Amino acid sequence: MYVQDFADGGMDAADLLGGKGANLAEMTRLGLPVPPGFTITTAACVEYMRTGVVPPGLRVEVTTALRRLEDAGGRRLGDPDDPLLVSVRSGARFSMPGMMETILDVGLNDASVHGLAAQSGDERFAWDSYRRLVQMFGRTVLGIDGAAFADPLDAAKERTGVASDVELGADELRTLTATYLEIVRARSGRDFPQDPRDQLDAAIVAVLDSWNTDRARLYRRKERIPDDLGTAVNVCAMVFGNLGPDSGTGVAFTRDPATGRAGDYGDYLPNAQGEDVVAGIRNTSTLADLARLDPASYADLRRAMRRLETHYRDLCDVEFTIERGHLWMLQTRVGKRTAAAAFRIATQLVDEGIITLDEALTRVTGEQLTQLLFPRFDAAAERTVLARGLGASPGAAVGRAVFDPATAQEWAGRGEAVVLVRRETNPDDLGGMLAAVGILTARGGKTSHAAVVARGIGRTCVVGADAVDVDPSARAFRTDGRVIAEGDVIALDGGTGEVFLGDVPVIDSPVTLYLTDGVDAALAQAGEDDARALVGAVDRLLRHADAARRLGVRANADTADDAVRARELGAEGIGLARTEHMFLGERRVLIERAIVADDDAARQSAFDALLPLQRADVRGVLEAMDGLPTTIRLLDPPLHEFLPDLTDLAVRVAVADERGESDPDDVALLGAVRRMHEANPMLGLRGVRLGLVLPGLFALQIRAICDAVADLRAQGRDPHAEIMVPLVGSAQEMRLVRAQVEEISAEVGVRGLRVGTMIELPRAALTAARIAEVADFFSFGTNDLTQTVWGFSRDDVEGAFFPAYLDNGVLVVSPFETLDAVGVGRLVTLATREGRERRPDLVIGVCGEHGGDPESIRFFHDAGLDYVSCSPLRVPVARLEAGRAAVLTADRREDR
Amino acid sequence: MYVQDFADGGMDAADLLGGKGANLAEMTRLGLPVPPGFTITTAACVEYMRTGVVPPGLRVEVTTALRRLEDAGGRRLGDPDDPLLVSVRSGARFSMPGMMETILDVGLNDASVHGLAAQSGDERFAWDSYRRLVQMFGRTVLGIDGAAFADPLDAAKERTGVASDVELGADELRTLTATYLEIVRARSGRDFPQDPRDQLDAAIVAVLDSWNTDRARLYRRKERIPDDLGTAVNVCAMVFGNLGPDSGTGVAFTRDPATGRAGDYGDYLPNAQGEDVVAGIRNTSTLADLARLDPASYADLRRAMRRLETHYRDLCDVEFTIERGHLWMLQTRVGKRTAAAAFRIATQLVDEGIITLDEALTRVTGEQLTQLLFPRFDAAAERTVLARGLGASPGAAVGRAVFDPATAQEWAGRGEAVVLVRRETNPDDLGGMLAAVGILTARGGKTSHAAVVARGIGRTCVVGADAVDVDPSARAFRTDGRVIAEGDVIALDGGTGEVFLGDVPVIDSPVTLYLTDGVDAALAQAGEDDARALVGAVDRLLRHADAARRLGVRANADTADDAVRARELGAEGIGLARTEHMFLGERRVLIERAIVADDDAARQSAFDALLPLQRADVRGVLEAMDGLPTTIRLLDPPLHEFLPDLTDLAVRVAVADERGESDPDDVALLGAVRRMHEANPMLGLRGVRLGLVLPGLFALQIRAICDAVADLRAQGRDPHAEIMVPLVGSAQEMRLVRAQVEEISAEVGVRGLRVGTMIELPRAALTAARIAEVADFFSFGTNDLTQTVWGFSRDDVEGAFFPAYLDNGVLVVSPFETLDAVGVGRLVTLATREGRERRPDLVIGVCGEHGGDPESIRFFHDAGLDYVSCSPLRVPVARLEAGRAAVLTADRREDR
Repeated sequence: MYVQDFADGGMDAADLLGGKGANLAEMTRLGLPVPPGFTITTAACVEYMRTGVVPPGLRVEVTTALRRLEDAGGRRLGDPDDPLLVSVRSGARFSMPGMMETILDVGLNDASVHGLAAQSGDERFAWDSYRRLVQMFGRTVLGIDGAAFADPLDAAKERTGVASDVELGADELRTLTATYLEIVRARSGRDFPQDPRDQLDAAIVAVLDSWNTDRARLYRRKERIPDDLGTAVNVCAMVFGNLGPDSGTGVAFTRDPATGRAGDYGDYLPNAQGEDVVAGIRNTSTLADLARLDPASYADLRRAMRRLETHYRDLCDVEFTIERGHLWMLQTRVGKRTAAAAFRIATQLVDEGIITLDEALTRVTGEQLTQLLFPRFDAAAERTVLARGLGASPGAAVGRAVFDPATAQEWAGRGEAVVLVRRETNPDDLGGMLAAVGILTARGGKTSHAAVVARGIGRTCVVGADAVDVDPSARAFRTDGRVIAEGDVIALDGGTGEVFLGDVPVIDSPVTLYLTDGVDAALAQAGEDDARALVGAVDRLLRHADAARRLGVRANADTADDAVRARELGAEGIGLARTEHMFLGERRVLIERAIVADDDAARQSAFDALLPLQRADVRGVLEAMDGLPTTIRLLDPPLHEFLPDLTDLAVRVAVADERGESDPDDVALLGAVRRMHEANPMLGLRGVRLGLVLPGLFALQIRAICDAVADLRAQGRDPHAEIMVPLVGSAQEMRLVRAQVEEISAEVGVRGLRVGTMIELPRAALTAARIAEVADFFSFGTNDLTQTVWGFSRDDVEGAFFPAYLDNGVLVVSPFETLDAVGVGRLVTLATREGRERRPDLVIGVCGEHGGDPESIRFFHDAGLDYVSCSPLRVPVARLEAGRAAVLTADRREDR
Repeated sequence: MYVQDFADGGMDAADLLGGKGANLAEMTRLGLPVPPGFTITTAACVEYMRTGVVPPGLRVEVTTALRRLEDAGGRRLGDPDDPLLVSVRSGARFSMPGMMETILDVGLNDASVHGLAAQSGDERFAWDSYRRLVQMFGRTVLGIDGAAFADPLDAAKERTGVASDVELGADELRTLTATYLEIVRARSGRDFPQDPRDQLDAAIVAVLDSWNTDRARLYRRKERIPDDLGTAVNVCAMVFGNLGPDSGTGVAFTRDPATGRAGDYGDYLPNAQGEDVVAGIRNTSTLADLARLDPASYADLRRAMRRLETHYRDLCDVEFTIERGHLWMLQTRVGKRTAAAAFRIATQLVDEGIITLDEALTRVTGEQLTQLLFPRFDAAAERTVLARGLGASPGAAVGRAVFDPATAQEWAGRGEAVVLVRRETNPDDLGGMLAAVGILTARGGKTSHAAVVARGIGRTCVVGADAVDVDPSARAFRTDGRVIAEGDVIALDGGTGEVFLGDVPVIDSPVTLYLTDGVDAALAQAGEDDARALVGAVDRLLRHADAARRLGVRANADTADDAVRARELGAEGIGLARTEHMFLGERRVLIERAIVADDDAARQSAFDALLPLQRADVRGVLEAMDGLPTTIRLLDPPLHEFLPDLTDLAVRVAVADERGESDPDDVALLGAVRRMHEANPMLGLRGVRLGLVLPGLFALQIRAICDAVADLRAQGRDPHAEIMVPLVGSAQEMRLVRAQVEEISAEVGVRGLRVGTMIELPRAALTAARIAEVADFFSFGTNDLTQTVWGFSRDDVEGAFFPAYLDNGVLVVSPFETLDAVGVGRLVTLATREGRERRPDLVIGVCGEHGGDPESIRFFHDAGLDYVSCSPLRVPVARLEAGRAAVLTADRREDR
C-alpha cells in the first residue's frame, strides 16, 4: 500500500505520510474543512530510490485513489466540461527546503481550460491557471530555466502597459499560455502533456526525484536528516482563492510568533492564490481585514485555529483559502517562533491549562535563552544595511571600523569601541580581536578562525560577508558601491549576520538584567509589557528547571571576578579554575626561568617567587566561592606556551649575529628553547607529565592551594578546594601526585582536600576503573578528549579542513562545539560506568566547552554525570538544558 | 600456618613457598638427598607488610618446625657440644636480585664454636664458620658496610703473608672473629647476639625487610612483579663442603647452557663452601674431576640430575655439596640458557621423548631467535674491553671512532666503517647515525634517543657507557686511562654492551644464512657441529611454528628490494607498503609544489609529473609480491614532512634581507609555509584529510596503483593490490575515498581491488562497526593509536620523559615497543569484535611496529587478528611467536 487518503491518516503515521501529509490527515480527522486528497507514502520513494523505477502497483493505487477523489468532488480529472484540478506537493518527515515543493492546477489542458472557464464563469482565471500550470510544470518537472517564462510575462506586461500580473486580461493570458507551450516544446523537445494523468504521473516522479538533488542532500547532511527516509507526495483537490472578491488566501498563527503575545495573527490576501502570498507580489491585509470583509469565514478560521491549538497543544500556523465564502484549510504545523515568543507561549499554555510546566520546559531551549541574553538593536530604529554575512557569534556591536590588529589595540586603548574588519583572521589577529567589540570578515564560515575565536572570547562576529571587499592597505572596505573608511562607524548583528552603517541604537536585554540582578530588578527596569512578560516567563521556566534538574551546574572561572559573576548567574561551584593564567603576563618570566633552569636551586628560587602570587590567586577564587566546591587544576598547557616562539627567537638571533650585535642571553635562551622544542606540543611534555618531570612545580601549586585554604579557614571561611590533575593517562600518575598532596597538606595541616583527575585522554577513559581507585572525582576534559579521539588538534584543523569536512559530510557540526556522541561520547559513558563500578561515590563532571552546549548537556545527563561546568555566561543555559534533560528523560533530581 | 617443612611442599605451592622453597620441597618429595628444613611462607611476609609487625604465631610455628629439624638430625640449635647450624635464605616466587640472599652458619656463638670444632675435628673450619657468620650477619642483618670486615681480613692476610683466605690458620681466624665481634659492637651499638634463636629471628626479619628495599622495588617495577607477593624464607640445616678433601661443593647443569650440547656440565670445588664457588675465589675443577676424585658421589649426582631433568622435563641447574662423601642437593631450578642452547635443548628433549614438539616451541622465544640473527664476535679471538654500557640495539659493529655526524657521513661516504661516539644523541645526529655501523653514547638508557633510533634503523648501539668521557672538541674519548682518538678502531657488542679496542673478528650467524638461503645452504656453510645442530633445531621449530600458527605474517616493505627480502624470510604478503617514501629525495620538490600551489592547474601538473614515478614504484613492489596480498597505503605523513622547515627558512629569509640579497622565491615560499604551518602536525592535515582536501592527490595514487595492476595483469602476472586509507576517523571518509577508487578503477578497467582502512585513531576503533560497512579490511596502526590513546607523540616524549616515567613506575616498558594491552589493546579488541560482528569476512591485521614484538604478537593472536605485519627482518620472529601463541592458547591454524 503506497497510497493513503487524507481521511485515513494522522500524525501517528508521520514517518510514512511526511509532515505535510500527516498534518492534512490530522486536520481531516478533526473534521476541519480540508479539500479531499491522498498521500503517496515515503515507502514508495524509498522503493523508487532502491530500484530506480517507480514501484509497480503505484500507478494502480494512484488510479483508485484518484477515482475516490473524483467521486468525492463529483469532478473528473481532464473532464473538458468540468475538470477536477489537483495540486502535487512534496512532503518529507522533516521540512526540507531544496526539494521540489508544489505544482498547482494539474489537470488543465487545451480542452479543459474552457470547461474551467465555463464552470467558474471566469475566463481570465481559467487561462491564468493554465498559464501557471505550464510554467510550474516546465520549470520544476522539465527543468526549464525560470527566466525563460519570466521574459514573455514581462513583455506582455510591457505590451499592455500594466504593472502586475493580475492586471493582465484573459486574452493576454491565452496568448501567454500559447507562448509558454511553445517554450516547453522548444526547450524540452516535446509537447506539454495534454493527458492530465501524464501530467500527474510526471509531477509525482519529479517530486520523488527531487529527494536526491544535490541541494536536498546537502541540506540533509547539514541538518543530520538520514538520506533513506524519502519524501511523501500529496495530491490534493484544488480550491481557488482567486475567484473574485469573496475569495482569498492567507497565512495565520494562533499567537504572535515574534513577540509571543496571545491572540491570532496573520496575513490575508483577497482574490489571490497561496503562491501570491508567499511571493509577496501584493501587499497583504491582516486578519482584522478578513474579519471585516467576511465575518463568517473569519469565525470559521478562528474556530479551526482554536481547535488546532487545543489539539496540537502548541502554537500552530496554517495556510487557508476562502473560495467564494467557503473556508478551506490547506496546511498546518506547529509554528516556528522567536526565542522570546517561545518562553512566553510556553508559560501562557501552562496558564491556560493546556500543557504542564514540565512540558513548557521542553518547549524552550538553551540556545533560545542564549539569544535572549545578548543586547540587540532597537527594532524601531532606522538603519541602513551595508551587507549580509553569517552570524557567527551573537550580539549587537557598534564601533569604528579598523583594518589591522595594531590599530584596533591602539584605538581601544584610548577608549574607542572598534570593529575589526579583515578579509579573514589568523592567530596574529588575536590581540586585535580581543580589543574589538566586534569582528567582521569577508570570508570564512561558521567554523572559520574568526568565528571560532570570537565565540570563544565572547565577541560579536559576522563572517563570510562576501560582498565586503576589504582593502587593508587603503584602510577601507567597499560594499555595494559604498566605501567605508577607517574610523567610520558600523554596526554588526551577530545573530542575523547583518552589517549596518552608522550608530544603530542598542537595547540591553531585560533577561540579562534578570539573571544578574534578580527578577524584581528586571521587572522594575523593563518598561514595555513584552519585556515584563518575557522576564516573568524566563524566571518561571528557569526556576522549574532548577527544581527538576539532576545535573549540577558549575562554572569554569579562573579569577575571583569571574567566580563572583558565575555565582550570580547560579553556578553551584567551580568545575575548572585554571592555574596557568596565573603564570601569564609579568609572571611569565618566572615560569620561563624555572623551565629553562639548569639547576634545581635556580628553579626553586623562581618557584619561591611564584608561591605568594599563586597563593593570592587561589585565595581570591576560593573566597568568592566560599562554601561551594572549587576545582583547581594544576598546570596543564604545553611547554611552548611559557617559552618564546622558536622561529621568532631564531630570526632575532640570526639577524643580531649578522649585524655583529649578538646577545649572549638570547643565544643561551635559543639553545634552551631549541632543546625543549616539541614537534607536537599538544602531545608533549605537559600536564601531569611536566608536573612529575619538573621537580617542584606541582609542589608549588599544591602548597599555594593548601596555604590559601588554611588562611581562609583561620578566618572562619569555608573553602572547598579540590585539586585536579590534568592529562592523566594512568593510575600511577595520579598515585604519585596524590602522594605529594598528602605530604604537603599534612605539612600545612590542612585536611579534607579532595584530589581528582581530568579524563581527557582515551587511555584515562579506558582505564577509568583503575584510576577511580586513586581519584575522588573525574572531570571530563572533552576538548582534549575530542582532540585525541579524532586525532586532530583544534588549532590546526578548524581553519584548514573543517569547512571542507562540513561540506563533504564527514562532520555535521564541529565536534568541539557539540560532543561527538558516537566516538568521544562512547568513552564518556564507558569511563563513567566503570569508574562508578569501582568507586560508587565517585563525583563525575565535565569541564570542557561542551559543558555549555545544549545537545551535549542532554548527553551528559543521559550518561549519568553529576554536573556540568561551563563559562559563567553559559550557566543559565546549562541550568535550563539540564532541567529539560531531566524532564525529557523523567530522571529528575527529586527521584534520586 | 606460616611454616611448612620441605617434606610437605612442592612446586604446586610455589606462590606460598617461593621458587627456592618449592624446588627444595620438590626435590625432597622426589627422594633426593636434601638437608632437612622448612619454609616460612610468603603469607607471613604479606601479613608483615600489611601490619608492620611479625605475625603473632609465627614465632611459635618456627619453634615447632625447629624442633622437628633438631629431631631429624639429632642436633640442637645452640648445643655447645654439637650444635645444629642452619642457613637462612630469601626466596620469592620470581628470582629477585636486590633482596637479601643468604646467611649461613646461624647457630654458632662463643660456646658452640668449640663444639663444632670438636665434632668436626677441625678447629680452623669452626672458626672460619663463626667468622663468616659474624661477617654476614653484620653486613646483611645489621647493615654494616662490607668494607669494615674486608679491611681486617686483608690486614690478617698481609700480617701472615698469605694470598688467600683458605691459607689463614685457626689462630688467625679466631683473632679475626674477635675483631669482627668488636666491629659489630662498635658499628651497631650492640653485641652480636649469642642466643642462636635471636640470630635466627633477626635473620628472618632481615629477609622480610629486604622485600621492600628501594632496589628490590625498582627491580620489581622493571620486571612487572607485583609488590604484594612477598618473599618466603627458607631455613635449612647446614651441610659442609669444607670438611676436608672428601668434601666439596659445586654447581652443575644437566646440559651445556651455553651451547646446548647434551651431557652434564659444571664446576666443582673440593673442600669448599658454596659461596666460594660463587665468589670465584679459587679456580674450579670440572665435573670430570669429581668423577675421578669421588666416583660414588658423582654417580649419585648424575642420578639426581637425570631424575630432576625427567621430573622437570627441562634443563636444570643444581647446587650441591658433598660432605665427607655424602651428596647433598642444596638447590635446583629450571636453568637459564643462551638462545642457541634454548633451540638445541628443546629439540633434543623432543628426540629423547621427554616433551612434544608443541612444548618445544614454547621453550624458545622470538627474542632468542632475534639474538641468533646478529653477527657476533668470535668468542675465541683476543679482545680488550675498553668499557661497558647497556646493549641497546644488538649486533657486532667494528669501525673507526668519529665524534660528529658530519665526519661520520663524510668518512662513510668514502667507504669507511665508522662508529659514532657521542655523549648523547639528538635528532640532529640522525644523518650520522644512519652513516655509522654502530653508535656509542656515554649517557642515556635503553629508551634514550640513541637507543630508540638505533633500534629503529637497525644499527648496533651501546648506550650509557658512563666510564667513557667524550670530548667532541678534542675528537677523542678517554676511558680507564686510555685515550681513543678519531680514526681509532673500536668494536661494539650491542647485546652485552661491551666496547672493545681494535678490530675484533666477527662471525656471521648461520641462522641468518638459513633464513635467507634455506636449510641446505646453511648446513653446507656451517662448519662446526654446534652451528649445524643449531640450524637444524631452528629449522625444525620454525617449521613447526608455521604449521601451528593461526596468525598470518606479512611484512612492512616500501620498495621492491625490501619486498623480495621479506618474501625470502617467509612473509605471506605485504601488510604495509608506504607510498610517502616514493615522494622523497628528488621528487620531494614535486609534492612540495603541489601542496603550495595556488591553482588547480599548477597542482595537477605536479601530480601529472609524479604519476609515472609512482606507478613504477608500485609496480616494483607488486611484481615482487606476485600472487600475495600487498597492502598499499595512500599518503599519510604530516604536511610539514614535505615542506621546508619554517624556522630554517625564516632565518634564511631574514638574514638575506639583512644583507639586501632577498630572494623573492624564498619570500613567497616562506609565506606559504607560514600559512600551512601546523602547531601539532601529528594532529593536523594529514592522511585521508589531506587526500580529501587536496584535490587530485589520492586520485594520482589510486591511478598509479590501478595502472600498475593493469600492466602486470596484461603480462599474465597476478598482483593482489589492496588500497589502505590512513588516519580514518569516520565511515564517511572511507566512503568518499572508496568512491574515488571505484571510479578510477572502473576507468582503468581494473576489478577486484580491495579497499580498507588503518585503524589508528581511537575514533576509528570506537566506530569500527560503521567503518566495517565500507571497508574490506582493517589494519591497526598501533604506533599512531598509541600516540592518540596516550596523548603523547613519539617524537616528543621518548627523550624527554620516558626515562623518568620508567623510573617512577608509570611505564614498565615503552608502549611503542610492547603494546599497551590495558589501554590501546582494549581498543584493538573492541574494534576487532565489533568490526567482525558487522562484517564477518573482514580481514584484520596490524602494521604498527608492535607487529614484530613477541609479547604484542601473543596479544594480537588472542584478540583474533588474521595477521601481523612487521619489518622484513622480524618476519621469522613473528612466525615463531605466532606459532608459540597458537600452541600456548591451543588455538591453531588447523583448528579453524
